[in-house]
Parts: sequence; C-alpha cells; structure tokens
Amino acid sequence: MTQYFFILADSELELVPSEIVNERCIINNARARGKAPEKILLDASHHHPAFGKLPDSERRGRPDLIHFFLLLCVDSDLSANGKMRAFVHTRNNDVIAVNPETRLPPHYPRCVGLIESLYEQGVVPSKENPLLELRQGIELDALVSALKPDAVVVLASDGQETPLAEKFASFKAERVAVIIGGFSKGDFKSDLSKLKASKVSLGKRMMKVWTVTSKVLSAIEYSEKIPAPTPPKPSKSRRAPKKKAE
Amino acid sequence: MTQYFFILADSELELVPSEIVNERCIINNARARGKAPEKILLDASHHHPAFGKLPDSERRGRPDLIHFFLLLCVDSDLSANGKMRAFVHTRNNDVIAVNPETRLPPHYPRCVGLIESLYEQGVVPSKENPLLELRQGIELDALVSALKPDAVVVLASDGQETPLAEKFASFKAERVAVIIGGFSKGDFKSDLSKLKASKVSLGKRMMKVWTVTSKVLSAIEYSEKIPAPTPPKPSKSRRAPKKKAE
Repeated sequence: MTQYFFILADSELELVPSEIVNERCIINNARARGKAPEKILLDASHHHPAFGKLPDSERRGRPDLIHFFLLLCVDSDLSANGKMRAFVHTRNNDVIAVNPETRLPPHYPRCVGLIESLYEQGVVPSKENPLLELRQGIELDALVSALKPDAVVVLASDGQETPLAEKFASFKAERVAVIIGGFSKGDFKSDLSKLKASKVSLGKRMMKVWTVTSKVLSAIEYSEKIPAPTPPKPSKSRRAPKKKAE
Repeated sequence: MTQYFFILADSELELVPSEIVNERCIINNARARGKAPEKILLDASHHHPAFGKLPDSERRGRPDLIHFFLLLCVDSDLSANGKMRAFVHTRNNDVIAVNPETRLPPHYPRCVGLIESLYEQGVVPSKENPLLELRQGIELDALVSALKPDAVVVLASDGQETPLAEKFASFKAERVAVIIGGFSKGDFKSDLSKLKASKVSLGKRMMKVWTVTSKVLSAIEYSEKIPAPTPPKPSKSRRAPKKKAE
C-alpha cells in the first residue's frame, strides 16, 4: 500500500516580520484581535498598506492557501484510509506536521488563530495530543529526505505535461512525496535540484493551490483504477493473470 | 460540448434572522464590523451563543461552505473552458448566479463582505458589471427547470454508489445539472422528487462540501477520457477502431 506525503512547499506563511511590526495597520489589526503585533500571522488582505517595505511583497502573507490545502488533504479519501500525511513547509523553512486525526477549523479566522497558537507553543492543542507540530529551520530537501520517499513529484509550471493519474500509476513506489507550491505568484524559492524529483505540469493555465491539490488527490484515486502496465514479453494468452495487479 | 450547471443547494447562507437580531453576540459582531446587525451574514463561528433560539441551529450559518464551493468552481478547468456555470441556492430560496469571469476573493472575511453587499444591492460590483446576481424566492426545482438540463445528478448519501466518472461518461446530454448539498449536517430540505434526478452517492463516509465538489469536478474531467461505450454487437476483431473514441 503506497503511502503519500503531501508537502505544501515554500508556502507564504509567517508571523509579521520585525521590519514592519510597528506599522499602523499591523498595530491596529493586532489590537482589534487582542494579540501582540509580533504574534500574529502576516496577512496580505489585512496588512497590505505595510507591504511596500517588504521584499517579495507581491506574494507574501497568504495563510488562506495553507488553510485550503489542509482542508482538502485532511478530508481526502487518502487521509481517511490512512494513506497520507500532510506537511506545510514555509518560506522561512518552518515545517508544520499535521496529524491525520486533526479536524481543522473550516472557519478561516479560527484557523489563523490556531496557527498563531502553534507558533507560540510549538504544538497544538497540547503535547499530550499533538495535532499540529511546528519544527523550525528545516529546508525542503531535508524534510523530503527525512520522509524517505521512493519517488518525488513536484507540481511545477515548467514540468512535463503528462496525464497525472497515469504518472502515479507508473510508480512502483511505496512512499511517494508530492510537492505543491504554497504561493500564488512566482516560483519555488527552495532548490528543487536536490530532490531528484519528477517535475509535472498540469498545463499552461495558472491554477490556484486548491485546484492543484484537488487535481492531485483525484489523480491518485484514479491511478489506483488504472490497470498495471502490460509485461514486456508479448503473450497471446488471454487467461486471467495468476496474481492480481493490486 | 456538454454544459454543466453546478448548484449548491439548500446551502446554509442567510442574513441574521430577525428573531436573533438583538442578541448580544450579533450586536457586538456587527458593531466591530461597522455594519447593521440585520445586514450581516449569519455565521455559526461568530454567533453560536445566539443559536439556541434558532430551529435547525446545528446546521445554520455556514458561509464558509459557499466560499469553498465557489472558489473550486470558478478556478476549475470546466469553468476556464466556458463549460460550467455555478449557482448557490439557499435554505430561504435565494439564488446567487455567478458570472464565470468572477474572481472571487480567497480571503474569507472579504467574501463574506461581498455577499453582504450582494444582499444590499442585488448585484455586485455593479449593474454594468454583474459578477454576482441575487434573485429571491426561487425554489430549487424552479432553478433547475429554468436551466433546461437533459440530465440532473444529485450527490446524496442515500444515492446509488456508482463510479462517478463513468456515470458522467454515460450521459448523452448537452446540459447537465449537478446538485451538491450546501450544508454540513442533515439532508436536503428541498423536495428532490420534483427533479427527475439520478441520485449518486460517493460512499458511506460523510464528506465535506469541498471534497464532494472537488470529486465531481475531477470526475467530469476524467469522464471525457473514458472511451464511448462499446456497441452492442459482439465482434472478434481486435484491430484498432476506425474512429477515435475521443
């Protein structure tokens, strides 16, 4: 039974960076939420007036992408069948490991609050019941290699356009890492060359993180219905094979 | 080319009902947002303390479900290829028609604000540029029959468990209505018997609205790759067919 590791890589999730922590829109938003400015997540939708001072400002502060990715992963058939683990890797090399038992809040502000607690405590809701765990300073290739995958697939716009279900069906792998970019603009910041990955593209159209995640989840489900590749030796026998392909 | 109409039916979207408009949590939340209490959307996550006074309280106030449904629909391949229209039908028979050009805000509070404007103005952003349009007093069967579908599929837990891609491939229909329940608990409130629909189940597991939507979108994409059904006459020829199935 193949185990899948879904990684949202270089995702635009971070606490408010120190260089803009004293900006008015940050202070007002933090005060309205009853939190310290340095303990809230950067959010493009609330903090845009302060973004001019940030490098890469056109892509930063997108906790919503992480929220959608995790909701789709946690409720997937793969996860329900114990065949997947989801991880969030961020632009600052923070990694959030998600326990498959997690029932993530579908309400966005609650999810933001939960991740802010995670940054304070390192684990939520508690050490005895670790549903989300934070580890810091882990580069993407270190995360991937710790998972010991037999195959790594990166969804990337410059990858090969290939039918995704057939791609997954072709793997003879027990552990597959799937890497999806956690940003809405630009490219991966991590060095993908270290990953020995197959780069796959879903087509020329730019797709949202939720569309990519949904397509990959479905492709894996469909891949299990694709018959195993025919053996190299030609054979005229049409009898059923002795072993089932599954 | 088949045209698909995705309808989120009986969805739990409504303005704060008059019987709880004076509850403290409603008034506080409205004040914090600078809006009149009767002009904000009911939201289980914010207004739960007032829910005891509402019938069906365990399922009401879920604008998040509408948000996810629309984000998945609007960014789908079907929508990008001009092959789908999305509609939201609510528990009060309000119907929101979504222009396929709409770029919906991924940020949940902004989407809530947009729908609140829609309830005030009937159309957003403007009559000249109607991206979302509200019509009231339209029952589900009236909406469906106005779309003149050749086939209607309802995703329902008591439906027939059947592979969804094959189901869609089997239709010889030019206009297909797909109905997904816009609630997290209970059953459809509308009378489905008026619809002449195929009821299909995705399995015994209760799935979230985003999972169901994502599965249906993928199934339709895969259905287009399924070869047309073999003709009824048996044939021993193993030559390639003259016409491509595509």
